[in-house]
Amino acid sequence: MIDRLAILGVGLIGGSLARAARDTAGAREIIGWGRDPARLQRALDLKVVDRVERDLEAVVAGADMVVVATPITAMPEIFRRMAGLIAPDASVTDVGSVKTAVIRAARDGLGADFTRFVPGHPIAGDEQTGVEASRSDLFKRHSVVLTPVEETDPAALGRVRRLWESAGAEVIEMEARHHDEVLAATSHMPHALAYTLVDCLVAKDQSEEIFRFAAGGFRDFTRIASSDPVMWRDICLANRDYLLPVLKDFDAHLHRVMALVERGDEDALDKVFERAKAARDRFKNRR
Amino acid sequence: MIDRLAILGVGLIGGSLARAARDTAGAREIIGWGRDPARLQRALDLKVVDRVERDLEAVVAGADMVVVATPITAMPEIFRRMAGLIAPDASVTDVGSVKTAVIRAARDGLGADFTRFVPGHPIAGDEQTGVEASRSDLFKRHSVVLTPVEETDPAALGRVRRLWESAGAEVIEMEARHHDEVLAATSHMPHALAYTLVDCLVAKDQSEEIFRFAAGGFRDFTRIASSDPVMWRDICLANRDYLLPVLKDFDAHLHRVMALVERGDEDALDKVFERAKAARDRFKNRR
Repeated sequence: MIDRLAILGVGLIGGSLARAARDTAGAREIIGWGRDPARLQRALDLKVVDRVERDLEAVVAGADMVVVATPITAMPEIFRRMAGLIAPDASVTDVGSVKTAVIRAARDGLGADFTRFVPGHPIAGDEQTGVEASRSDLFKRHSVVLTPVEETDPAALGRVRRLWESAGAEVIEMEARHHDEVLAATSHMPHALAYTLVDCLVAKDQSEEIFRFAAGGFRDFTRIASSDPVMWRDICLANRDYLLPVLKDFDAHLHRVMALVERGDEDALDKVFERAKAARDRFKNRR
Repeated sequence: MIDRLAILGVGLIGGSLARAARDTAGAREIIGWGRDPARLQRALDLKVVDRVERDLEAVVAGADMVVVATPITAMPEIFRRMAGLIAPDASVTDVGSVKTAVIRAARDGLGADFTRFVPGHPIAGDEQTGVEASRSDLFKRHSVVLTPVEETDPAALGRVRRLWESAGAEVIEMEARHHDEVLAATSHMPHALAYTLVDCLVAKDQSEEIFRFAAGGFRDFTRIASSDPVMWRDICLANRDYLLPVLKDFDAHLHRVMALVERGDEDALDKVFERAKAARDRFKNRR
């Protein structure tokens, strides 16, 4: 199904997809490209890729499937450099956490090759990073969202879909705007809030002591503040059109809760907490 | 060391302390009291307590160590009913998550017996509740904060300290106000934020879909929203004098972060996220 798979950016996601593609999609050859030679060498040492290549243009020209798994800030330039080099039947996809911004960059950069591009986002991964943490089952039973646009070639869409399905993922198609709205709420906002909370505590006089008396609940709540800060800053900024409204909405809810605490409104505060617990329990039971 | 231990409220914390006291502090007899006969019976069936008693006055009069492990809202009345019944050498302690409000209730309710009261708070427990989840090692290597006041009898303080130490806890003494400030930041605020976030998402049109695309980070971040909502409402209200200032401080930080996102200030947002990650990683490495 895939003859030569190019992975641009061999980190946790790119590396895991490479492993899965070899194990389950029968990719004949997997080539890794990246800007950091030491990291590429580790990917080779770990046999995540068959060979590595420093020349982006050569990798892209020889591949029938190209996965852009770099930080989203690197994508505009990569798309520009790829334009005109993509083989006639090749497919290109990405794994960025934000879709409208990536689609804009791909449309601008790829030119006529934009029809080969299938925007994608695997909803997997955690606060770990790097090819060392990659594993072939990372996407198993996880959702992968594809957000094709009008111009997207159906054959390219089908091939990218099959790649993810062979990795064990459940593939869902939706509009890019809708993806960005939903992910702003469930992923980008929680990260922004966790970073904000920890930073707010760090700024306090007794911050060392505060962390000393933090228990399991705090540990869970702030775990995502251990995620890659540059990556999350870039995601928050790339998705700011959808992130800001949900943050403002959260802030309005927070003001209501603060007002209930201030005036000691037991019944109303109870309703908020009960409704949240019921929703969180439904979510827990579905997994 | 303890002859007859009375546990008022045999839930997760009271039940775990009963188990630990039997295993490690050599309590001769452990008596459970509570308002719900079915729950008391379960504590008896699970052999967490030796016998149960419906008459609060009788339990208190016969005990040389009384642990008040009920919800904090029940404590004022319990203290009033205990007044004058406490044996001359007996000690009384509590496990409430808020200390200045509990001390006020104990001072008002216990009268002359207030000197026997040692305010305490084990920093343990999670979103589980009930005697079924109790275990003798719940407090092992966890902090227990005692917040004695001027009137507190040193002998009572010593006995309560030894009870917790025998359960494997690290006992720390601090001022009640300071405890309430620190716990507002590390525990009460995160719970209030987690409930607020989930409630804010529930209110959205596409809330079912939002939860469908939530990944591991969201699960961790909102786990504490599965905690007992009535208990946390009561804690938030009892500690509102310390909770409100930290919530306002968080809100100010959130407004700064929103402003950085809005104007796309990469450097400043990076600084916030990096500082938070560094603090969270230090915390992680200490555990």
